[in-house]
Amino acid sequence: MMKFYYSPGACSIGIHFLLEELAVPYEAVRIAIKDGEQFKPDYVGVNPKSKVPALARDDGSVLTEFAAIAHWLAHSFPEKGLAPSGLENGARAIEIMDYVVATIHMQGFSRLFRPAKFAPSEADHTWVQDMGREIVTKAFGVVSESLGDNRFILGDRLSMADSSLFYVLFWAVDRQKLDLPRNVADYYARLRDRPSSRKVFHDEGIVFA
Amino acid sequence: MMKFYYSPGACSIGIHFLLEELAVPYEAVRIAIKDGEQFKPDYVGVNPKSKVPALARDDGSVLTEFAAIAHWLAHSFPEKGLAPSGLENGARAIEIMDYVVATIHMQGFSRLFRPAKFAPSEADHTWVQDMGREIVTKAFGVVSESLGDNRFILGDRLSMADSSLFYVLFWAVDRQKLDLPRNVADYYARLRDRPSSRKVFHDEGIVFA
Ligand SMILES: N[C@@H](CCC(=O)N[C@@H](CS)C(=O)NCC(=O)O)C(=O)O
Ligand SMILES: N[C@@H](CCC(=O)N[C@@H](CS)C(=O)NCC(=O)O)C(=O)O
Repeated sequence: MMKFYYSPGACSIGIHFLLEELAVPYEAVRIAIKDGEQFKPDYVGVNPKSKVPALARDDGSVLTEFAAIAHWLAHSFPEKGLAPSGLENGARAIEIMDYVVATIHMQGFSRLFRPAKFAPSEADHTWVQDMGREIVTKAFGVVSESLGDNRFILGDRLSMADSSLFYVLFWAVDRQKLDLPRNVADYYARLRDRPSSRKVFHDEGIVFA
Repeated sequence: MMKFYYSPGACSIGIHFLLEELAVPYEAVRIAIKDGEQFKPDYVGVNPKSKVPALARDDGSVLTEFAAIAHWLAHSFPEKGLAPSGLENGARAIEIMDYVVATIHMQGFSRLFRPAKFAPSEADHTWVQDMGREIVTKAFGVVSESLGDNRFILGDRLSMADSSLFYVLFWAVDRQKLDLPRNVADYYARLRDRPSSRKVFHDEGIVFA
């Protein structure tokens, strides 16, 4: 059975959501980042990058990086309809996931959540967080433009690309209470209302304030 | 004809390399980041993210994000053999490109090249750059493991994934003179020796110290 490595509430929750939407068997293995478990030898053996998400497949080989895992999962179970159809949609899905991961998450939210990784002086942390908020706000404007009146980011149907927006929107709405463009807020409400979202929040033990 | 937007010596040089390897017609449009051209209305109209690379296709639609552009290009010209074959290689290619872009480049080299984006106090810039060097060094260790004795990152044949390593290795070797694991340094020497590398360095006006 596949092993899915995650930390509660981390970006891995997007892959968790995708696994539930695919409704395929997997074992979820908790690696608590707040306890530094990602640096323990057992996990370094799984993923030398010391990051989640990671996915060990049936043959034991491990795949890392959000977009790579999402691409592999969606295309491994094409009958579930979460792989984008055609090259153009396939490229657009990667474009969205990469913008989410490399910019919204790693440039934006990382500054908000962990300013000490950016600037050593505590007095500068507000400056770092303000820049993070600016990056995130600009990016959700770009997302809002691409989304338009669509139900999901690639059109009427859910795809692997939505799983990346699911996790940054969970952070934006449920963690940071950010103001979002109306269509983006409504879109997140639609994602959050799905049984698979409720299941992953429950399984990861996420507590809402 | 496709329009390829780049800034000299920026990460877009990896897509430039890929375009040359594909040997397809394109027009290269220079957007000098050092002059802030990415923020001018003309370019914001092309890419509201104000980043390079971007690719306008024949129908005028614009694709952004390194891995998305590389995926689309390689698969649009399958006869050139730069699209990975099969799902496993396809996922591995995305895994490599995302690690290069989101971690090696945006977490690592960004700290080395532009510490002022991380910490406002100049006194802290050495701290920021040291962290950047640490991230890059650890990451090239991971790359060295995956590369092993292979000629290219996915095996014996060049693929779109190599184009991402090409640009960070250009930064590592030619810009920062970093020490690299032996197999990674040799691999870069092989990439750099290709006619397409020489052509892009020439066309972008790169001067070697
Ligand atoms: N580029 C990676 C990002 C993964 C990442 O940053 N994961 C975070 C959790 S959201 C992590 O594992 N952090 C552990 C640490 O920073 O020590 C991906 O696409 O999967
Ligand atoms: N995630 C983007 C990264 C693109 C990026 O960061 N490009 C840099 C050049 S290496 C840029 O355009 N910077 C302009 C700026 O920072 O103002 C991608 O994959 O294309």
